[in-house]
Amino acid sequence: MPFVTVFGETLSMLRKLFQTTDPASQPFVISGSGTLGWDQVAANLSEPGDDVLVLHTGYFADSFADCFETYGVNATQIKAPIGDRPQLDEVEKALKEKKYKLITVTHVDTSTGVLSEIEALTKMVRKVSPDTLVVVDGVCSVGCEEIRFDDWGVDVVLTASQKAIGCPAGLSIVMASGRAMETFKNRKTRPNSYFGSWRNWLPIMQNYEAKKPSYFATPSPQLVRALHTALTQLLSSPLEERFKKHKEMSQKVKKAVADMGLKQLATKEENQASAMTAIYLPEGLTPPEILPSLMKKGVIFAGGLHKEIATKYIRFGHMGVSVTDPKRDDIDRAIEALKTGLEEVKK
Amino acid sequence: MPFVTVFGETLSMLRKLFQTTDPASQPFVISGSGTLGWDQVAANLSEPGDDVLVLHTGYFADSFADCFETYGVNATQIKAPIGDRPQLDEVEKALKEKKYKLITVTHVDTSTGVLSEIEALTKMVRKVSPDTLVVVDGVCSVGCEEIRFDDWGVDVVLTASQKAIGCPAGLSIVMASGRAMETFKNRKTRPNSYFGSWRNWLPIMQNYEAKKPSYFATPSPQLVRALHTALTQLLSSPLEERFKKHKEMSQKVKKAVADMGLKQLATKEENQASAMTAIYLPEGLTPPEILPSLMKKGVIFAGGLHKEIATKYIRFGHMGVSVTDPKRDDIDRAIEALKTGLEEVKK
Repeated sequence: MPFVTVFGETLSMLRKLFQTTDPASQPFVISGSGTLGWDQVAANLSEPGDDVLVLHTGYFADSFADCFETYGVNATQIKAPIGDRPQLDEVEKALKEKKYKLITVTHVDTSTGVLSEIEALTKMVRKVSPDTLVVVDGVCSVGCEEIRFDDWGVDVVLTASQKAIGCPAGLSIVMASGRAMETFKNRKTRPNSYFGSWRNWLPIMQNYEAKKPSYFATPSPQLVRALHTALTQLLSSPLEERFKKHKEMSQKVKKAVADMGLKQLATKEENQASAMTAIYLPEGLTPPEILPSLMKKGVIFAGGLHKEIATKYIRFGHMGVSVTDPKRDDIDRAIEALKTGLEEVKK
Repeated sequence: MPFVTVFGETLSMLRKLFQTTDPASQPFVISGSGTLGWDQVAANLSEPGDDVLVLHTGYFADSFADCFETYGVNATQIKAPIGDRPQLDEVEKALKEKKYKLITVTHVDTSTGVLSEIEALTKMVRKVSPDTLVVVDGVCSVGCEEIRFDDWGVDVVLTASQKAIGCPAGLSIVMASGRAMETFKNRKTRPNSYFGSWRNWLPIMQNYEAKKPSYFATPSPQLVRALHTALTQLLSSPLEERFKKHKEMSQKVKKAVADMGLKQLATKEENQASAMTAIYLPEGLTPPEILPSLMKKGVIFAGGLHKEIATKYIRFGHMGVSVTDPKRDDIDRAIEALKTGLEEVKK
């Protein structure tokens, strides 16, 4: 299949993944990483001097705020205690006190395993501050947590190729609403990134979706083809089923973790992500004392990422084929490895 | 091999490829494309209000200048007629008239096949304007044209993974001199890109080269492993031999093109790139009339890229394994395809 056709079909499939049928919605696929999505938001949707509100659930909000500051945008953070998320009434209060160009929320914070409530948040923002764009960092949620882009009225979801979508790393993926594209088109200043500028990429994405060759910067054909394959597989079953399976597997993991006497960073059930679990180690045990022995058992767990408590917890990913393919026993083996690994350390 | 070891070895091999042994030289490998290298230069080495001088040999200088303007930097271009390059005395005159933070030159302009003279240019700049950094866009030259980074005193070479290095597309590769890194460290303002900021990437690259895990944005492990393999193969023979083979193959292609009665965009021999040839089609013939029939013969030629004459010429790439692997007959087949293709069109 010619590359433009592959790229065009990939963009159309992204519309399905994000559950948007509004033709004004605009997908972008650019070589980079999830982080490049932050630059795209900061450089295309906010302008120097604008105020933005960043909801903090862990490591990634600090970095997204730093990204805004890089582009001359003032970022105000609402922080929650570790393992929790900012409450809607606090966010509502902040929105009433000041006009914000956009609000950002990390759907699943990979550093804490905390899930944010996108639907309720978006509806509240629409009511209290209708012009404020809702930007969702979905790096650890797209493909495993439900996102109904049109129904919920989200303005941007940014993600990357390598997590629950199941494609290798190297692509920044963004879906922007018609409202977001209007905000972009009505900018008073030019976008202040070149590689991340939608002024440069918008015509390219539109041409590709119309199956016309187009050039701004060299794409990564093998990665776009891999994304095409990953999305074809992902969309071959109903999305609801996929989200349900992730939720069920998550409950199984979280029960097993509790049975081992371990606590999660995210204490409240409604705060807990479906595709990963951040787990406090037993008092006194640090990640370097347990991770290598887990790796020897053939399972990779990740260390802590939240600066204040990085040495006290580990992270367990349960997403994609490990969850959806009934022939795989990855998760059972990971649970078993964690259990025996912890017993061995105790001895 | 663990990923940090692969990444660290890759950075060390890049030092060899660029022929730099100065420990102050700093390599960067970031998910993206060659274009991201422009953002890195504009956002890390120049500051808003600075003046930079851009030597124009085709399409890419206009875009690089646009990139500088995006970051608030004033770009002055010296343009040459199509197929030629700005002359050293013109450049010298410009450098004497105004203080430039840096000068950029496209080593091989992929839109015209014009080669620039990096050694003589760099030496002249050092003499006339010692503080001006020399930035080389080496996207279509690294791996096929000689670059002696230390000996010539170049400050930045930026490139991408997919051309003569022979790795798939998706990586921005930059080598910066100690002088360039000093300029970066002495900035008065913070870098005005986030994803392309060396403030974010420098500690990561230093850690990787020391084989220590480190995180700023998710890297593309399969691409970095592919680059490791490509560089291992590339460095298994002496670089001089590689450059010599590219030059010889280029002469063969250019002779064949002349024998077909076709003219190159780059008319002077010293202006002609070793890894590609931009060829004017016979009067009245356009790329869409010949490219599909060449593709049917199993050879991909590229259409014109220089806006003013895009419909009048095609581009012939001869680089990497097609040149260095004696068992391959790619170039002979391409020459033959072009010859018979043109004859068929005439009938």
